[in-house]
Amino acid sequence: MTSESVQRRVTVADVAAEAGVSAATVSKVLNGRADVSASTRAQVETILSERGYVPTKRTRRATAAAEGRGGLIEMVFNDPSTPWAAEMIRGAEEAARAARAAIVVSVLERGPKRVQQWLEDVAGRGSRGIVLALSDFSPADQKRVAKLGLPTVLVDPVGDFDTDVPSIGAGNWGGGMAATKHLIELGHRRIAVITGPMRFLCSQARLAGYRAALERAGAGSDPELIAHGDFHYASGVASTLELLDRPDPPTAIFAANDEQAMGVYAAIQRRGLRVPHDISVVGFDDVPMSQWISPPLTTVRQPIAELAALAVRTVLAQPHRAELPQTRVELATALVVRDSTAPPPA
Amino acid sequence: MTSESVQRRVTVADVAAEAGVSAATVSKVLNGRADVSASTRAQVETILSERGYVPTKRTRRATAAAEGRGGLIEMVFNDPSTPWAAEMIRGAEEAARAARAAIVVSVLERGPKRVQQWLEDVAGRGSRGIVLALSDFSPADQKRVAKLGLPTVLVDPVGDFDTDVPSIGAGNWGGGMAATKHLIELGHRRIAVITGPMRFLCSQARLAGYRAALERAGAGSDPELIAHGDFHYASGVASTLELLDRPDPPTAIFAANDEQAMGVYAAIQRRGLRVPHDISVVGFDDVPMSQWISPPLTTVRQPIAELAALAVRTVLAQPHRAELPQTRVELATALVVRDSTAPPPA
Repeated sequence: MTSESVQRRVTVADVAAEAGVSAATVSKVLNGRADVSASTRAQVETILSERGYVPTKRTRRATAAAEGRGGLIEMVFNDPSTPWAAEMIRGAEEAARAARAAIVVSVLERGPKRVQQWLEDVAGRGSRGIVLALSDFSPADQKRVAKLGLPTVLVDPVGDFDTDVPSIGAGNWGGGMAATKHLIELGHRRIAVITGPMRFLCSQARLAGYRAALERAGAGSDPELIAHGDFHYASGVASTLELLDRPDPPTAIFAANDEQAMGVYAAIQRRGLRVPHDISVVGFDDVPMSQWISPPLTTVRQPIAELAALAVRTVLAQPHRAELPQTRVELATALVVRDSTAPPPA
Repeated sequence: MTSESVQRRVTVADVAAEAGVSAATVSKVLNGRADVSASTRAQVETILSERGYVPTKRTRRATAAAEGRGGLIEMVFNDPSTPWAAEMIRGAEEAARAARAAIVVSVLERGPKRVQQWLEDVAGRGSRGIVLALSDFSPADQKRVAKLGLPTVLVDPVGDFDTDVPSIGAGNWGGGMAATKHLIELGHRRIAVITGPMRFLCSQARLAGYRAALERAGAGSDPELIAHGDFHYASGVASTLELLDRPDPPTAIFAANDEQAMGVYAAIQRRGLRVPHDISVVGFDDVPMSQWISPPLTTVRQPIAELAALAVRTVLAQPHRAELPQTRVELATALVVRDSTAPPPA
């Protein structure tokens, strides 16, 4: 090996020629592929090392792609500042970072023109895949996204969704069931629910879980105790005030998310009542805040960060959309009992 | 114009030849630059339109860059799931989207190797600039980032920082002053403070504002009423229990962020006392949660989303780092009076 050969950059072709193999075989060794014999691999690796081979930027990229490393993953929200989104971002970022990938956080505004612009931008930056964490996403927009041909995963999809696209969500039905069963076991019979928007699948599933628990207990559900909220604080306040002003108010309220449960607290306090002495409250989500409020909230823990991490790993594992299994994966929820639930007043 | 010429892609050179100007002049017209005469611009635009010029991907990118559009901006956090980070992400994403740019959200782990990897990844994806929203960032790591040569802005930098890097933050001193002045005007004299970590500039500034308000009122600050927290819920609880167990407990507590203020609420309740009847509480940040807790929290509003938006716009406006002014921009804070403050008990 002369000093001249050191000064010129050593290429894959040089290494292939010296080893007496094809350039494709050298690439396979560089990419850690299994379909190379052990003796050829050892020989190529020795030459790569002796000749001081430094991969080009293009080769580094190809290697990273072959190993499932690197690149950008699009995460799309309606609002990235909710506690739910914050947990999603935390989980997704961690999973992406473990693979030396990174996440782009975007808000997707409605309308074909906005979606089209966003798709152009995504194509322009060469993203590897898309995680949709949207509460509203029309079938037409889903078709537009599908045309990109990128691996796409819906996280906890909350409306009608194209069954071609795999989705990852929490066990909403089981969570609604567990929350209601807990209240029944404490002795409550008049249990109200404040739902999320009914166009969201997760709202429908939580309500169905609530109904199933009541039916299993032989209680049946009273339509007067089903209030329809929108997952926001103000709807928790308004729905609770209406429920409390009924001639036969409930002794417990299951709020279908934690933000609404905070509204339930405020309304109960406004009527001069106390949680859980006068009325029990259960939430859904287990955002960090739920343990800081007074009293700490009994709630259904959604593995939000885990859902997002799984979505990112699913996207990273699939170089081609066609290979994504058309599945719905559900991660289990768990009831976290804190201080907002107690037996009903005597 | 023959049909043959339509089938071949029309280039900038074709348009320049037909207009009798240089290719550079055509590029200037495409990029909307001012240094082209109105008559030349009109002539070139007519030919571009007649010949059906479609910009190449490279030209579209150059045009986007010239107009300050497009590209990626890196946002770096220690923890992207705090309410503070969530607001930052919301503001940054909105500002980026307005310019058809997008934000990459990352957690930067400590250690030279991690920082080096991150820098390679940032260089690899061709990001346009960096917004650092880190509470700890060593001068050595700042130098590593500077070597990238990308426009970089620190948001509310909370430690020692390289004065070469422009920073954007809130009026922390003024906010600490306003919070304390409000309590003094209500008649409080024994006012405690629970600070953030003292290595953070923002903690130092908020404490200094507290002290200045007391001094202006001729009260002076009692070192026994200064508790050092870490901005987290648990330190709010622990510091408050200590303060309440003193022989001469405070009648008001200024918590240097809202998360700690929630810990203050919990500790006060644990001692069987009430906010604000027995003790007044002021927070700092005005995260959405602060209006949902009971009683709604009087706090100092930081324009968190606006800080982040300004950071993104500053990065987007500067194609070269050298052009970034070495400034510290402060956006004003504002006291938001809610229900957690009242005159001291008689």
